[in-house]
Amino acid sequence: MARNLQLNEKGELQHLLTIEGLPREIIVRILDTAASFVGVTEREVKKVPLLRGKSVFNLFFEASTRTRTTFEIAAKRLSADVINLNISTSSQSKGETLLDTIDNLAAMHADMFVVRHAASGAAHLIARHVAPHHHVINAGDGRHAHPTQGLLDAYTIRHYKQDFTRLSVAVVGDILHSRVARSLIHALTTLGTPDVRAIGPQTLLPTGVESLGVRVFHDMREGLRDVDVIVMLRLQNERMKGPLLPSAQEFFKCYGLTAEKLAVAKPDAIVMHPGPMNRGVEIDSMVADGRQAVILPQVTFGIAVRMAVMSLLGGGAA
Amino acid sequence: MARNLQLNEKGELQHLLTIEGLPREIIVRILDTAASFVGVTEREVKKVPLLRGKSVFNLFFEASTRTRTTFEIAAKRLSADVINLNISTSSQSKGETLLDTIDNLAAMHADMFVVRHAASGAAHLIARHVAPHHHVINAGDGRHAHPTQGLLDAYTIRHYKQDFTRLSVAVVGDILHSRVARSLIHALTTLGTPDVRAIGPQTLLPTGVESLGVRVFHDMREGLRDVDVIVMLRLQNERMKGPLLPSAQEFFKCYGLTAEKLAVAKPDAIVMHPGPMNRGVEIDSMVADGRQAVILPQVTFGIAVRMAVMSLLGGGAA
Amino acid sequence: MARNLQLNEKGELQHLLTIEGLPREIIVRILDTAASFVGVTEREVKKVPLLRGKSVFNLFFEASTRTRTTFEIAAKRLSADVINLNISTSSQSKGETLLDTIDNLAAMHADMFVVRHAASGAAHLIARHVAPHHHVINAGDGRHAHPTQGLLDAYTIRHYKQDFTRLSVAVVGDILHSRVARSLIHALTTLGTPDVRAIGPQTLLPTGVESLGVRVFHDMREGLRDVDVIVMLRLQNERMKGPLLPSAQEFFKCYGLTAEKLAVAKPDAIVMHPGPMNRGVEIDSMVADGRQAVILPQVTFGIAVRMAVMSLLGGGAA
Repeated sequence: MARNLQLNEKGELQHLLTIEGLPREIIVRILDTAASFVGVTEREVKKVPLLRGKSVFNLFFEASTRTRTTFEIAAKRLSADVINLNISTSSQSKGETLLDTIDNLAAMHADMFVVRHAASGAAHLIARHVAPHHHVINAGDGRHAHPTQGLLDAYTIRHYKQDFTRLSVAVVGDILHSRVARSLIHALTTLGTPDVRAIGPQTLLPTGVESLGVRVFHDMREGLRDVDVIVMLRLQNERMKGPLLPSAQEFFKCYGLTAEKLAVAKPDAIVMHPGPMNRGVEIDSMVADGRQAVILPQVTFGIAVRMAVMSLLGGGAA
Repeated sequence: MARNLQLNEKGELQHLLTIEGLPREIIVRILDTAASFVGVTEREVKKVPLLRGKSVFNLFFEASTRTRTTFEIAAKRLSADVINLNISTSSQSKGETLLDTIDNLAAMHADMFVVRHAASGAAHLIARHVAPHHHVINAGDGRHAHPTQGLLDAYTIRHYKQDFTRLSVAVVGDILHSRVARSLIHALTTLGTPDVRAIGPQTLLPTGVESLGVRVFHDMREGLRDVDVIVMLRLQNERMKGPLLPSAQEFFKCYGLTAEKLAVAKPDAIVMHPGPMNRGVEIDSMVADGRQAVILPQVTFGIAVRMAVMSLLGGGAA
Repeated sequence: MARNLQLNEKGELQHLLTIEGLPREIIVRILDTAASFVGVTEREVKKVPLLRGKSVFNLFFEASTRTRTTFEIAAKRLSADVINLNISTSSQSKGETLLDTIDNLAAMHADMFVVRHAASGAAHLIARHVAPHHHVINAGDGRHAHPTQGLLDAYTIRHYKQDFTRLSVAVVGDILHSRVARSLIHALTTLGTPDVRAIGPQTLLPTGVESLGVRVFHDMREGLRDVDVIVMLRLQNERMKGPLLPSAQEFFKCYGLTAEKLAVAKPDAIVMHPGPMNRGVEIDSMVADGRQAVILPQVTFGIAVRMAVMSLLGGGAA
């Protein structure tokens, strides 16, 4: 069902809502297309005319300058016209419904909606509503999914480790509240990663997380043993004040990535983080800035992945 | 006087401030030009180079994401550079006067100012002040005028009903506070509409509204009888809390457009609304989403009308 | 040290952080390049493709619509892609450090950072941190420097008075808190201006201001005698309420520029102000709008100067 919504009748990407149920060949096509755009962003003139004359609407119902910026840059480098809309301060407060807002923007001949929303399922709701010539990209919906982040994580892993079918990958921290973790785990299992591990305290792991195809560890040193890839998650400030955790210091002691814990992984293991980092909470600065960190390449690849997704939508230009 | 300010010495559109006093041939020229842009916005590459290298400043002294977006899209599809300025948070708070702000932006070689302001007459003040190579478009000033909305309403009516000289048009609701109603009524009378009706409670009709050339009805069923076009107005939330009206429910009962009241109009009557709608207050969802509603086409035509106005200013490119 | 940071190994402009220590020939090259752009901004199509495909990030950690707008226009007229980031509302509040934010944006292949920050030295900090293919322009850091303002002031003076080596220039008002004054004084002395005067009350002059190469006057009529150029500074509202000054009225009486005080200067003296003006506080409206004022030409030249700086960075396109 979710799968059908994301693909058109020719099996091409119609919307990008979640990695769950996305066919392996679509994911691979996105990663391959992104590889061609990595070159573009390194050129003197970082622009290609693939989306010239297209209108991309960044609909951010929840503020996120960082994510909005990555989509804005990706769209501009594809030569699209980009309109940024921060909706909380707008029509929504005038009592208009979400779908009325979408209908209005669609009537302005929007080609793509990049949607960030605090409610899980918001992007799906919009995708189900719009006509076939409008495309929706989920830029994060509640705790549910953040598919372009999952794809850029997969791109980064493939860039450094090539073959998913031989990898051990550990995802560490607040998996319960993380749409990033959820999207990455789906990408990894779809791409055939044999060993995916979820590391964190019981209170920050979703019930039944094993059903996603991961092994659970509460002890970080045990969980990191011989892994090829470590993905640290951001511990959100509001969680730290909540009853689920004793304190940021306590969390760091158990689940913060230090050089000493990192030493348990394979010597060439890479360290990833979706950003923004809380240095000294989920990751030590020595590790964040160390030779195994690929946190900034993740950002670079993220632009290329977003360009790839935008260019592929609707059997698009690429 | 207002007419002179809007036209240059060759009789071309210099500023668009109000439809009051705008010659019929200028209005028709705008609508005809808009028709040519409707095609552009449906193309794969929705861009024409008419305003390439021109600088359009969206000066919003009053927040309105929706209206700002329509002008931003229109300008970008004409290939202009667009600068969005939300002025309340800016120099105005540093004590600079409105005209000093305008002088500064004009000195940056602004070509067009799109102005939204809570004070009636703000756009006129600016138009009187600037040099002849700067053009001003009023995007809504207080209760006074919203000429591009009036023009897109006229465009929509012409699209569906062709000949204004045979039409009955009803404008329903809070006419007292509506710059949309005022602009539309001027457009309709200038274009020769023989029967324009204002429907609403006494407290929401301006004193002497008949002098605009409309017939007043307090009973909605009576007022809608055999009309070709129904224009519903938005009832602003703040009015609903005020002493002028009993309640939103009460208003809906008397002046909300339902299928039953709509049946009094001609069978092929069209239903319009400037948005954003308050479903269940001034319009029933069945009607808003029904086959006679042309509310979303209004939005589409609105982009084309704004492109037309921008391209015609100063005897411009079109 | 500061000088080395601003120039690359070929002696070309690498970053623009402060006018202090900037070689005379670099300043002259910027002014000469700006002169070529003054023509561009007067053309029908105000665009040149020098920065096509480059990404310029406006990083405003302190709100300033006016300054942000000038850089946005300058970059767009050079055909760059511009991303506006208001950082106070963003990642900074999520606990990310300034340099992590910069690293992230750099990883998105930013070419230029235009930085406004309340802390003196912020732009230097960023310039020291980034890799050589990223360029930083200081758009105002605390009380320290605002080099593009100093350059546009120098451009304006050269435009009207040609030869710096024969000029008397008076800077009047709150020099203590003014990065504008500091940047201009450095520009003037570097360009060989023999007579630079600082006029203001003791409480608004920095201790040891004479060491910058200026003569101090507390009496305005004395200080303005026979000058060629008068630069009035903005008196910030918060100062007026503070203990350093009796009142705005009192200040105006002593240090506000009136026609009567202006008469003490040379008959062809020009009057400058960085804006926004407090009419009736530091300058009388008769003077601000009078024939000797060149306040709006400053704004126009400011766009050309910013285009020049952007195009020259890294031995750039110009």
